[in-house]
Amino acid sequence: MADRNSNAGIYEAVPQFGRLRDGVLYNDVWKQPELSPRDRSLVTCAVLAALGKNEELRHHMGVAVENGVTADELRGLVVQVAFYGGWPCGVNAAKAGMPIFEKETG
Amino acid sequence: MADRNSNAGIYEAVPQFGRLRDGVLYNDVWKQPELSPRDRSLVTCAVLAALGKNEELRHHMGVAVENGVTADELRGLVVQVAFYGGWPCGVNAAKAGMPIFEKETG
Amino acid sequence: MADRNSNAGIYEAVPQFGRLRDGVLYNDVWKQPELSPRDRSLVTCAVLAALGKNEELRHHMGVAVENGVTADELRGLVVQVAFYGGWPCGVNAAKAGMPIFEKETG
Amino acid sequence: MADRNSNAGIYEAVPQFGRLRDGVLYNDVWKQPELSPRDRSLVTCAVLAALGKNEELRHHMGVAVENGVTADELRGLVVQVAFYGGWPCGVNAAKAGMPIFEKETG
Amino acid sequence: MADRNSNAGIYEAVPQFGRLRDGVLYNDVWKQPELSPRDRSLVTCAVLAALGKNEELRHHMGVAVENGVTADELRGLVVQVAFYGGWPCGVNAAKAGMPIFEKETG
Amino acid sequence: MADRNSNAGIYEAVPQFGRLRDGVLYNDVWKQPELSPRDRSLVTCAVLAALGKNEELRHHMGVAVENGVTADELRGLVVQVAFYGGWPCGVNAAKAGMPIFEKETG
Repeated sequence: MADRNSNAGIYEAVPQFGRLRDGVLYNDVWKQPELSPRDRSLVTCAVLAALGKNEELRHHMGVAVENGVTADELRGLVVQVAFYGGWPCGVNAAKAGMPIFEKETG
Repeated sequence: MADRNSNAGIYEAVPQFGRLRDGVLYNDVWKQPELSPRDRSLVTCAVLAALGKNEELRHHMGVAVENGVTADELRGLVVQVAFYGGWPCGVNAAKAGMPIFEKETG
Repeated sequence: MADRNSNAGIYEAVPQFGRLRDGVLYNDVWKQPELSPRDRSLVTCAVLAALGKNEELRHHMGVAVENGVTADELRGLVVQVAFYGGWPCGVNAAKAGMPIFEKETG
Repeated sequence: MADRNSNAGIYEAVPQFGRLRDGVLYNDVWKQPELSPRDRSLVTCAVLAALGKNEELRHHMGVAVENGVTADELRGLVVQVAFYGGWPCGVNAAKAGMPIFEKETG
Repeated sequence: MADRNSNAGIYEAVPQFGRLRDGVLYNDVWKQPELSPRDRSLVTCAVLAALGKNEELRHHMGVAVENGVTADELRGLVVQVAFYGGWPCGVNAAKAGMPIFEKETG
Repeated sequence: MADRNSNAGIYEAVPQFGRLRDGVLYNDVWKQPELSPRDRSLVTCAVLAALGKNEELRHHMGVAVENGVTADELRGLVVQVAFYGGWPCGVNAAKAGMPIFEKETG
């Protein structure tokens, strides 16, 4: 499952965009059998971190946990992204994961 | 294991870069226990696809297969990257995977 | 006309930058006859959305409306950018356009 | 119409990708009424130029001409993209347009 | 010296990341003799500006001043980045430098 | 001096672009006194490496040498860019510098 509830206003303001989100992104792409939802979450978080989409990344890290990615695996993603996408990508990925990292150690 | 054998000339021409590749990228980052090599490959391919590093991506898709990622999982990565990183990222990821896709169906 | 009034402080703090904005960007590039101001706005919004320059995009969507781009055309731009630049680019373009979309339906 | 005939091999090698190209990108996104095909071409070329997708850009500049964009308008796009996306984006956009520019002056 | 004190929480939350920052980024990369700290700061600020890492850029502009880069040289960097990375990169670099520019003229 | 002689065809095919290159980029930006040509070369190479503009980077590394940047300083730039822009940016910067590195050791 992806970012179904966030940004609700924009998908109503641009109805074609909302229709494609529901019909294609959620009910087609994310459900295709080639790659598991857990792996799609890893891939999505890596893409968002590489492109600096920090707000979306924070959301999708939460989705990743729901899909079975552990906090430690997200820590590994932070370091891997830092080296292949540049240090600031790692920094922002770590910031995006803080709610998850802090909850775990709480 | 990552791109150890490619671009050998550049790492000799910039010795500090080669030293960090061997000492840090290969023998530290890729071996950290938080994330499996198979998942590091997924993340690395996703980052490279998102950033349009097509030559490196082609290499790392081969590494991904060695690390246990299947051809079908790479197909799933292509579609996921196309939607989150933009259609041309998917196109280039598919091109990078062609040697793998063609071998499988051969 | 582009972002003449915004960020005034920075153009005074970096005078060469301000001089080039006034002399080149506004009074040369934007006024060249090859492309209409309306089409320059479309192109500028597409570039800003693709590069994730969200603050500048919000400003230039307003400029686009002044230059004759309709709210519906901006909706189309949102979807087109989402597919060619990646879903998060569409999300941020939609957010940037919300003042325009909400005004229209108000 | 977009890049239906190019890269045919990849869409067969990744069938879900090909299905979405035909069903969604071509027969839905490009045909949505909010933005004309000519303007979608302008937006698409601007996105591709900004993101440095040079091969796709070359193809879509040809599509743009089919959709009614003139060679001079593409010249204007080159300059606009150079200033908002950086000089190298303009250089690459100009290179991508050379077959069109040369044909016109031939 | 780089961003040792900022983002402290994230480096504790992702210990491998913090270890690499201290051991590799600060005590190896930044201290390599090929390029002076002052020039590394110029390069780092240029990279961060080009990639739109505005928060990190603000920090590293302060580091640059500590390493001997003058306010006027940062003004020059703003303009150079605006032309090679795109106007919004210059705008954001100028914003990041405002504490330095304002202090100088105060 | 920047890329005056390369890509000559494109600047003739898009005359406004060529006029701005000669009048603004070469005879204004590069000559502004705030930053030395040597430092502008460092900044330009860093931006081009970060954005993956490999062809332009190869050219500007040659310009950098003309402007007083040493081969060793370019080696330092490669490593700095690899860490702040991502490993593939360092790889491509090293490739772009190979003619310089090889000549030096020849």
